[in-house]
Amino acid sequence: MAEPLAPGAAIGILGGGQLGRMLAVAASRLGLRAHVYDPAPDCPAAQVAAAATHAGWDDAAALAAFADAVDVVTYEWENVPTAALDAIEAVAPIRPNRRALAVSQDRVAEKEFLGGIGLTTAPWAPVGDAAALDAALAGIGCPAILKTARLGYDGKGQARIMAPSDAAPALAAMGGQMAVLEGFVVFEREISVIAARGLDGAVACYDPGENVHEAGILATTTVPARLSPGLRSDAVLIAARILNALDYVGVVGVELFVTRAGLLVNEIAPRVHNSGHWTQNGCAVDQFEQHIRAIAGWPLGDGARHADVVMENLIGDDILRVPDIAREAGAAIHLYGKAEARPGRKMGHVNRVRAKS
Amino acid sequence: MAEPLAPGAAIGILGGGQLGRMLAVAASRLGLRAHVYDPAPDCPAAQVAAAATHAGWDDAAALAAFADAVDVVTYEWENVPTAALDAIEAVAPIRPNRRALAVSQDRVAEKEFLGGIGLTTAPWAPVGDAAALDAALAGIGCPAILKTARLGYDGKGQARIMAPSDAAPALAAMGGQMAVLEGFVVFEREISVIAARGLDGAVACYDPGENVHEAGILATTTVPARLSPGLRSDAVLIAARILNALDYVGVVGVELFVTRAGLLVNEIAPRVHNSGHWTQNGCAVDQFEQHIRAIAGWPLGDGARHADVVMENLIGDDILRVPDIAREAGAAIHLYGKAEARPGRKMGHVNRVRAKS
Repeated sequence: MAEPLAPGAAIGILGGGQLGRMLAVAASRLGLRAHVYDPAPDCPAAQVAAAATHAGWDDAAALAAFADAVDVVTYEWENVPTAALDAIEAVAPIRPNRRALAVSQDRVAEKEFLGGIGLTTAPWAPVGDAAALDAALAGIGCPAILKTARLGYDGKGQARIMAPSDAAPALAAMGGQMAVLEGFVVFEREISVIAARGLDGAVACYDPGENVHEAGILATTTVPARLSPGLRSDAVLIAARILNALDYVGVVGVELFVTRAGLLVNEIAPRVHNSGHWTQNGCAVDQFEQHIRAIAGWPLGDGARHADVVMENLIGDDILRVPDIAREAGAAIHLYGKAEARPGRKMGHVNRVRAKS
Repeated sequence: MAEPLAPGAAIGILGGGQLGRMLAVAASRLGLRAHVYDPAPDCPAAQVAAAATHAGWDDAAALAAFADAVDVVTYEWENVPTAALDAIEAVAPIRPNRRALAVSQDRVAEKEFLGGIGLTTAPWAPVGDAAALDAALAGIGCPAILKTARLGYDGKGQARIMAPSDAAPALAAMGGQMAVLEGFVVFEREISVIAARGLDGAVACYDPGENVHEAGILATTTVPARLSPGLRSDAVLIAARILNALDYVGVVGVELFVTRAGLLVNEIAPRVHNSGHWTQNGCAVDQFEQHIRAIAGWPLGDGARHADVVMENLIGDDILRVPDIAREAGAAIHLYGKAEARPGRKMGHVNRVRAKS
């Protein structure tokens, strides 16, 4: 195994949003230098990074120079274009690896991968055209949900099919892109596991969090989740199986549905995850530092939870509540440095910390 | 009272060492932009700041432009030259105020201030020449310690006087600078209180920490300190009296000796303090964020302690122990991004976190 990166080494981060911002800060805690790549000049991560390259995702020369200036490259965003990754990988290692990206960039690949390692998902079928959608609906039934195979996030690129008459408009909403039909899952709650795998193959999991979404966007994550010891252990084993199967290095977010029949895997995010933000105030080593440790070849840190936390996203005008939140006991505020509070835009989050129950 | 600074406002920080670095990160958590002023191009704070000015302390034009680019100016270092402060204050407010700086820049002013508000210090006398030193020694007795009035830190600019024959060399070591003779204090332990005062006059104190120095440099701070409830309350009242008397805005570090006769004030630092680093992993709002909140006109945050912490400074070659520390359970590492590990140089610290006792 390669030596761990020493203080002063540079971590390249593709994408300069809030996840890149918090990764950059975590890198600084380990004495490492963050170098952010993002087209937007005043992106959130550049405000806290030692260096930034502002260039397009199609600028091969800028990508190569960026890769040459750093020791390892990671990403806050799983939809980095393939050509950009090619330009980088010729120069510097990318962690997590390309396979993890390929699997999570495409819902068909993701579901095939999950099924292939014996994990359960909602019933699904690939949908390329109207005939495939009809066949899929015949098998899966209504209600169901049609999702673009690629580039979906926060509920975008999705259409519900409550009855067969919804099929045509749902397909039209996909805009001709490859899609996936998923059967509706009746679940008691949604949880997620934030887990990490080191360059040495060691795996560490944070305590599962319980998620509540509003309008397709994560609203809150609560730890501890309401979860039996058996399901808690299942959740951790599922995450570990995914990490090992992908020869993964870094932090992964695994969203799971808790159903009567056990856990179903909803989605994998090959990066630090919004539902892991609670770790900033509940653990000695948070998910951002854990990710940096993993990709830098450091030993994984101690993710044991020392407090109960409720993470609340501050979305759009929620930012106007910050003056009140600032007066709350036990509230740790994390804002992202975004100039404009558009509806649906993640502006920050607050971790409400309590003594461990 | 002025409105609190809104997200996107800029905090100017004079000095780009580790304290400036951690202040810059705390500002980012509140959605504020840090702008660091430091002559050194690759100083620790510039690596995590949204902007940096690298110019000399005598560059009035650079100082004025810096002040013009920010909404409020603070400092990580109490020895900022007076002329630099004058150049800044003509353009932007400086918090904590000039009086706090003047008092803490000069041991004579500091001790006169403390005595003037009824607080007890070690016996002391100002020493400008050999005759004054003789008179001071006659009153205070041996052993004693001679310290330069200005620019002393981490045990520098100090000479012990164990017997009258040490007086001449001790005075020579002052290099002609104004000095202070302090009587030796027999103390059980040294503690410090990190306290804050907001723009609205509200005061908040962290739990006192117990400090151990080695070779004149802080080695560890432990919370909780071994301290009776009465002395704990005295410590907090002393800090509050200092803050109110100075009409202070920001975080102050107050070092106290615990003696049989009660608490003596050793020193005031008008800034975040090394002995408050434990708050990063023991409180929802740490000393760095508390300082930024205060100078930005935000409400003070919740400094209640939710864990026990031992902070250990990593000095010089201690940095070589980081790979081992990284494997420890409960160890939160904070490195400063300094390229060279010179003897006596603070390279980072580790907060060892345990469940609250």
